Amino acid sequence: MQDHPDTTFPLSARTLGRRSFIQRLTGIGAVASVALQETLSAKDTITMRTIANPRLFTFIGGDSGAWQVIARKTVIGEPLPTVKRLDIVIGEVKELPENALWKLSGVTSNERYTTRAEKDQLAAKQVTIGRPEATHAAMIPIRKSAKWWSMTQDERRAIFEETSHHVKIGMKYLPAIARRLHHCRDLTEPQPFDFITLFDYTPADAAAFEDMVADLRATEEWKYVEREIDIRMVRDVK
Amino acid sequence: MQDHPDTTFPLSARTLGRRSFIQRLTGIGAVASVALQETLSAKDTITMRTIANPRLFTFIGGDSGAWQVIARKTVIGEPLPTVKRLDIVIGEVKELPENALWKLSGVTSNERYTTRAEKDQLAAKQVTIGRPEATHAAMIPIRKSAKWWSMTQDERRAIFEETSHHVKIGMKYLPAIARRLHHCRDLTEPQPFDFITLFDYTPADAAAFEDMVADLRATEEWKYVEREIDIRMVRDVK
Repeated sequence: MQDHPDTTFPLSARTLGRRSFIQRLTGIGAVASVALQETLSAKDTITMRTIANPRLFTFIGGDSGAWQVIARKTVIGEPLPTVKRLDIVIGEVKELPENALWKLSGVTSNERYTTRAEKDQLAAKQVTIGRPEATHAAMIPIRKSAKWWSMTQDERRAIFEETSHHVKIGMKYLPAIARRLHHCRDLTEPQPFDFITLFDYTPADAAAFEDMVADLRATEEWKYVEREIDIRMVRDVK
Repeated sequence: MQDHPDTTFPLSARTLGRRSFIQRLTGIGAVASVALQETLSAKDTITMRTIANPRLFTFIGGDSGAWQVIARKTVIGEPLPTVKRLDIVIGEVKELPENALWKLSGVTSNERYTTRAEKDQLAAKQVTIGRPEATHAAMIPIRKSAKWWSMTQDERRAIFEETSHHVKIGMKYLPAIARRLHHCRDLTEPQPFDFITLFDYTPADAAAFEDMVADLRATEEWKYVEREIDIRMVRDVK
């Protein structure tokens, strides 16, 4: 594991059995991608000795997957083609599956803005995505403007929290709403979005979720959002 | 270009001719990767409509490339196999070339710690990598510990600058030493390093460069570096 430190998922398919590894990672209707196989060859041991990225999630819009799409709104910018179902897969998916219209990937990573005090407050209240009762979900890919990214860390932080209260707003809705943030901007291939946020909640908290996204979209920070799609889903309960 | 905002390189192969695009990006002995071709197919227009990532650089250690390796030191952690030459390529290189022993990739990105005041000071003094007279270079891949990444933004910033004076140290050596930072941690495939920093300088500034890396390695921040390789190179002057 020396070459593959991972604060989010400290265990790899190497140390756990593959099945239990996948179960641990899934959380929310995810199935293992074929890419989650170790790729070892004699020549490229240096760069390829690790397994496929367990922090990477691929969202596939099409006709299959655990999540049935019930609504899709283009908040700003170019739309995404409407799909019937969403499949959430761990790892990279190199080829777009049959009957799928699009795929988007993102990687969980270290926090970029949260302070220790905020993180401790969040940790005391937040829940992990994938609760059995959380049958409703939202997938919200967004892209921020070049102006946002040209700002320095202190400038972005000031807008994010001191002006827009991003963490404070999110905190109000814990533990009802679970959230997982995926970063897309520094993946190997250029991506159409900078972030994908996945939320889940129970039907009883659906109205609270609407309030939360409305609060966030009214902030100063959201003036830097130039593309945003809001996809709502329900999970098949078997 | 709506799907591909890029503050580092605002021009793409689409708006410039391919040759001048590559020349603009290279800077330092880079040649275009085959991946820098547009890949468009009927089906996956959503995710694949962009060109290969112009912020991505691949460093190939082997027998070819513009840079001749003159020294290699394992500062801490597992070594990298010794190579004769280094090739620096724009974009992704899917297959390790013949006679190459390793390849490492990283992506240029927004600043993570620098404040506006610091960035303005840096901007007034810094130079872009690739000056004709800068025939000496260093490629320094590092990986930080899980403990570093589990810290919050304010904790990392405090160590990075308030305690370790990372920016302040670098500033002392401007404009003699040019630097380009590549992020590896959030690429699609897991990487053995978190960052690759590339520096170039003239032979007359080689001693100053030694002072700078020694200053940085003595900081509190460097206690979180668990793997570091220091590769020194000279460029063929034709």
